[in-house]
Amino acid sequence: MLWPSIVSDRDRIGFIGLGIMGRPMATRLVRAGFPVVVHNHSPEAAEALAAEGAETASSSREVAERSDVVVTMLPDSPDVETVVLGEDGVIAGVREGMLVVDMSTIAPATARTVHAALTEHGVEAVDAPVSGGEPAAVDGQLSIMAGGSEAAIERAEPIFAELGKATTHIGAPGAGQVAKAANQIVVALTIQAVAEALTLTSKAGVDPGRVREALLGGFAQSKILEAHGERMLEGRFDPGFRIELHRKDLAIALQSAREDGVALPATAQVAELLNALIAQGSGGLDHSALFTLYAQLSASGEETPD
Amino acid sequence: MLWPSIVSDRDRIGFIGLGIMGRPMATRLVRAGFPVVVHNHSPEAAEALAAEGAETASSSREVAERSDVVVTMLPDSPDVETVVLGEDGVIAGVREGMLVVDMSTIAPATARTVHAALTEHGVEAVDAPVSGGEPAAVDGQLSIMAGGSEAAIERAEPIFAELGKATTHIGAPGAGQVAKAANQIVVALTIQAVAEALTLTSKAGVDPGRVREALLGGFAQSKILEAHGERMLEGRFDPGFRIELHRKDLAIALQSAREDGVALPATAQVAELLNALIAQGSGGLDHSALFTLYAQLSASGEETPD
Repeated sequence: MLWPSIVSDRDRIGFIGLGIMGRPMATRLVRAGFPVVVHNHSPEAAEALAAEGAETASSSREVAERSDVVVTMLPDSPDVETVVLGEDGVIAGVREGMLVVDMSTIAPATARTVHAALTEHGVEAVDAPVSGGEPAAVDGQLSIMAGGSEAAIERAEPIFAELGKATTHIGAPGAGQVAKAANQIVVALTIQAVAEALTLTSKAGVDPGRVREALLGGFAQSKILEAHGERMLEGRFDPGFRIELHRKDLAIALQSAREDGVALPATAQVAELLNALIAQGSGGLDHSALFTLYAQLSASGEETPD
Repeated sequence: MLWPSIVSDRDRIGFIGLGIMGRPMATRLVRAGFPVVVHNHSPEAAEALAAEGAETASSSREVAERSDVVVTMLPDSPDVETVVLGEDGVIAGVREGMLVVDMSTIAPATARTVHAALTEHGVEAVDAPVSGGEPAAVDGQLSIMAGGSEAAIERAEPIFAELGKATTHIGAPGAGQVAKAANQIVVALTIQAVAEALTLTSKAGVDPGRVREALLGGFAQSKILEAHGERMLEGRFDPGFRIELHRKDLAIALQSAREDGVALPATAQVAELLNALIAQGSGGLDHSALFTLYAQLSASGEETPD
């Protein structure tokens, strides 16, 4: 093992949730030399991490008992509630002074609930959802949006530095999740903007590639027009970020909006269009496949009758 | 006058429409040394151009008679139809071999009608709408989206070089207007995306400035999030680009969509929200003031009853 003296000074990391995102993230931490103990609901991924040098634990409680900082990367709010707050969960194994970093994308309200429950045990909690998807998880290039106390986020910094290219401290517990919800709103609606614009262009008999190029030079410029616009032109809808996950994230945004007294008509509308794609069996495609729905909403010929 | 031998070789330019955009554009052409003859429905702006060294004409027909290339910069499709195709219009004064460059934002169908009518007189037409607004017009930094023949656009190039930072040849006549419609769709919907995201953020008690900062580093990045997001945070809604003009441009996009057999639900929805702002008397504000409508759609307190 490299630098044993440094490693021995480091917090022992518990990592729970070894899915598409969690597995490459945990792998990076092991390879960086952190002592890591993992747990996953299906054991195959845990065994793969063990082959990298991680220890394994048989429950979330045991992960907490054997580590100083617990990182969770789970699909949705109920999973985090179960894994952290449930029977045999993290909370059953924590000691005062520990830190729990949830990097899942979940409801801000759930993040605040988790924070409050752990605080009662003298444990700090940070919500730190990410953007960038699987490639960024593999390369340690995630964008991290963190909510929690200054001290807690500072303590998590060596972990964030290994996983991400930038961490923004958004605010108090739950603020990271609010930022992530805002991010998912902007991404979904910008994809829809590009889909409507390129559909109009194509149906008018104009080259959408040239239009995309022209628009990238002005106020219509966005990363979405660049990357997802290209996907639309090429008809390349392998994920990327799956429609069904984006639909879940918009549900979080809409639920938060309702709780906070905000109407989000455009977000609600694009969520319904994602529902339609899921109903068609396209939930596993990249979210840029929203473009395919617009082809269905357009005339097959050149013109429609008046 | 500088370089008289070069100037005398140049096309004489007729310029019709000296509004917020047209006046600084015509001024640039005069100052660059082009021989320019102008006409405007109200004479004050024409006199200001005369003070810069332009000649004035009393009708659009006369502008055409006294120039080789006619540039028009007018508010809407009916204005272009009247000025170019109407009685005493450009078409009444053209000679074979002339060029007409319409830089207004109008319906693609009108652009094609104008092109067809001028072609019958042996006159080429280019539709070349711009983006960038008044500051870019003043600085010669417009983005120009051109539709027309290769030869016609090449002939207009010295004019475009003086007015814009980049010209994209989109395609056949009308294609420039289709690109502009696509641009206005993307800009409107991206403003709405940012407005919904920042409203949710604020109402959740989270600092929208930090969220904007975090989002600029990832897939949610756009020029709109940068510039219009900042306007929303500062509550600075002086135009910029006026809501009533953007509403007009979306009407063009929706009409084109209907003619071409395309459904654009998101564009239709944001157009209705701009209608609401116009009804409130806010049509003269910058389009980023869409954000103010969301404050009205949100609870004034922290939470709403379930």
